[in-house]
Amino acid sequence: MSKLADATPEEVRLAMRRAKESFGPFRTLSGRKRSSLLCRIAEKIKGSKETLIQTAERETALGEKRLGMELVRTVSEIERFADFARKEEWRNRQFESADPLRQPLPKPNMVTQRIPIGPVVVIGACNFPFAISVVGTDTISALAVGCPVIVKSHPEHAQTCQSIADLVKEAIEENNSPEYCFQLVHGQDHLVTRSLVQDPNASCIAFTGSLVGGQALSKLVAERPSPIPFHAEMGSLNAVFALPRAIGADVRKLARNYLNAVNLFAGQMCTKPGAFILMEDSSTPAFLDEISEEIRRQRVLPLLNHSVYLNYLETTDALTKKMEVIGSTVIDEREIKNPGNIRIFTMPAKEFMESPETRTEAFGPSSIVVRARNESEMLEVASSLEGSLTCSLFAENEDRSLAENLIPILESKCGRFLWNGFPPGVVPGPATHHGGPWPATTDSRFTSIGLKAYQRFVRPVCRQGFPERP
Amino acid sequence: MSKLADATPEEVRLAMRRAKESFGPFRTLSGRKRSSLLCRIAEKIKGSKETLIQTAERETALGEKRLGMELVRTVSEIERFADFARKEEWRNRQFESADPLRQPLPKPNMVTQRIPIGPVVVIGACNFPFAISVVGTDTISALAVGCPVIVKSHPEHAQTCQSIADLVKEAIEENNSPEYCFQLVHGQDHLVTRSLVQDPNASCIAFTGSLVGGQALSKLVAERPSPIPFHAEMGSLNAVFALPRAIGADVRKLARNYLNAVNLFAGQMCTKPGAFILMEDSSTPAFLDEISEEIRRQRVLPLLNHSVYLNYLETTDALTKKMEVIGSTVIDEREIKNPGNIRIFTMPAKEFMESPETRTEAFGPSSIVVRARNESEMLEVASSLEGSLTCSLFAENEDRSLAENLIPILESKCGRFLWNGFPPGVVPGPATHHGGPWPATTDSRFTSIGLKAYQRFVRPVCRQGFPERP
Repeated sequence: MSKLADATPEEVRLAMRRAKESFGPFRTLSGRKRSSLLCRIAEKIKGSKETLIQTAERETALGEKRLGMELVRTVSEIERFADFARKEEWRNRQFESADPLRQPLPKPNMVTQRIPIGPVVVIGACNFPFAISVVGTDTISALAVGCPVIVKSHPEHAQTCQSIADLVKEAIEENNSPEYCFQLVHGQDHLVTRSLVQDPNASCIAFTGSLVGGQALSKLVAERPSPIPFHAEMGSLNAVFALPRAIGADVRKLARNYLNAVNLFAGQMCTKPGAFILMEDSSTPAFLDEISEEIRRQRVLPLLNHSVYLNYLETTDALTKKMEVIGSTVIDEREIKNPGNIRIFTMPAKEFMESPETRTEAFGPSSIVVRARNESEMLEVASSLEGSLTCSLFAENEDRSLAENLIPILESKCGRFLWNGFPPGVVPGPATHHGGPWPATTDSRFTSIGLKAYQRFVRPVCRQGFPERP
Repeated sequence: MSKLADATPEEVRLAMRRAKESFGPFRTLSGRKRSSLLCRIAEKIKGSKETLIQTAERETALGEKRLGMELVRTVSEIERFADFARKEEWRNRQFESADPLRQPLPKPNMVTQRIPIGPVVVIGACNFPFAISVVGTDTISALAVGCPVIVKSHPEHAQTCQSIADLVKEAIEENNSPEYCFQLVHGQDHLVTRSLVQDPNASCIAFTGSLVGGQALSKLVAERPSPIPFHAEMGSLNAVFALPRAIGADVRKLARNYLNAVNLFAGQMCTKPGAFILMEDSSTPAFLDEISEEIRRQRVLPLLNHSVYLNYLETTDALTKKMEVIGSTVIDEREIKNPGNIRIFTMPAKEFMESPETRTEAFGPSSIVVRARNESEMLEVASSLEGSLTCSLFAENEDRSLAENLIPILESKCGRFLWNGFPPGVVPGPATHHGGPWPATTDSRFTSIGLKAYQRFVRPVCRQGFPERP
């Protein structure tokens, strides 16, 4: 399929120039017109639902059920942004009246409102072929506010990307919108991504992927002659702290919920709990036993693809050499292609704090149970954490005093803070915030999911002294 | 005065550690308590008004009148932020109720609100010893939302910085607030600034100064193991476009207003118009004549200090070799110390576009009149501009069609866009936006002046499933 060939540097430059040229016409469309473009995109995707899911299933092994749910959520987000684009409340218009009699000088009127920032480069994730890809929140929120978008397709689901892009192109044509307000480029080679983020016509980058990838791109962006905002949503540890009474309350239920969260979609979730911190006491052995019981009850799911599988094996094999394994599954490759075997480790808090490499995200269904000897060690673990998308705290009334000490520390480490709950699986709503301090993201002040995702792509301009119709 | 000695690297580390340690206690103060701290700071400054102005006058030569006005504005901004801190509307609380009956899983409640980002390092400007320095908008907006602040004093007005810092320290003690929520460090040597921006306990940097300084710091911040937001407000060209009828209407008045804007506070304003773009026609000679007349009428003011003077001489001497001088003043150093002699240059648009070095800010009362031969050349100049804090457009009804073509281009280049007005001298209000695309600032989405300046220093956190009183 020659259309999926890597873009050459010249093709990238051309795409970026076309995006820049389309910025003027695209940003001056009415909110209603951009809204109808998004509606059309949503309709096209709904209309090709079955084909898209089949294509994505061939490329990701995520399963039809999960892909179906993801597609529904993706479409509903597009529709939410269509509504948002139509209302144009995002312009956040602020007005100061003129005061011609002010001393010593007359005051002109001032109108400040937000405008789109310019062409946005979107580099999506491997684990959400619909929701964090070609028509994910990054693309749709940028289009909603009038930014042209250039998506770099994901090599592991390039055909899904192309099929969706074809639908978007049809929608653009039928809606009579600027041809190049949306473009897709393919790139197995990192060179394509490099060319995109270094292109002078890019105004903002939105990336979802690994810490290593995010760091490399961050460095490239910092070297640009004219810097632009670079937003990366990267790996995250998502530490869960469980206080003594909360564990003692129902060891079986807690172990089951923990494993369900670790193994959700084979652990390939940016909010998978990678560490579970408890304080050793009389209920610890029973809890660890329940975990190994629960591991046996879990279903092993296929990982996204062979490279994710190899990477997961390598990471968890390295962890196995450093710490005790509470339990693991052993499905082999003849039974399930690229099996996501669960591996739950355990180690003392002191060792956990001393070996930062254990704290990096293992992309797949593994997690570490960290055993603190006492309250102060638990607080130390909390303080030693890096930034994360989420932190969770399980506590009962009797755990109150320790909980009160942990809350400010954990809140300072994350973008979403859960009380008696595990992080994966949130439906986007008005209070959605998906971000967190480095290394969870490059800028904790923004979100990449939910309606506020557009805030990365707008900037205020104040018009001073303009007549009503200049 | 030994207290103005450069901080050692150990002292910087200690200050940053103390700032971090005070973050917890400071952010948990009530809005009312932080508000009363700001009120006390404002009172202290008002109480020492005369001494502060005298000290600043000795260090900056800005003149008592201007310094008095600046101090009044600074105090009124502190009072505005005191009100802002008390109301706590900045938290922008958003709530989603729980839905225990939701299928397939119950929905927990979600509360998202903003929290302070952490210790903020403030590096102020040489040209505003009150408004963009120790208790300028950067410091005050950060304190208002609960971020501890570490100010690096400006070497050219270090005593003014110290005197203000002493007052802030008194206010902190009297208000019974955390001792290290505010600290001042001195540093003639760039090493002090380097240590500050690289310190692991810094969460955000706010800098106002030159492009060269901003670029150097930007590079240092990008090299941090954990990146943090770096906000720099730097040099700006502030291009003014004047269309034919607008020039023809009253050449004398326009020339006078132009020179007043160029020479305001000896041109040491970040919004000084550095380029005036016109289209050559029959009124051009008369306009250029009026400019040279007006130059003679202007009063020459002293520049801030000898290093600003030498730098201004060097920059304008270099420009003199490249283009024609319309007029200049020739006050010598015996008459006025560090005289800010006005120099207005002119050159054809084509040459202007071909020599990017002419487009950098000359800090002082100089400006370039750029002569375009026709409409398309004027549009070309607009398109070739880099980002700027402001752009201005002078147009009459008959200039409408060219104006309509220029407006979208100029708006894409600036943060404030003026119609028939020159940029300097704005009183902060609800619609204030002081920012702009690179190289005016490092992030066009934020402002460093006005109430919204606090947005750099907060981030959202979503609490999920928390009981009303955890």
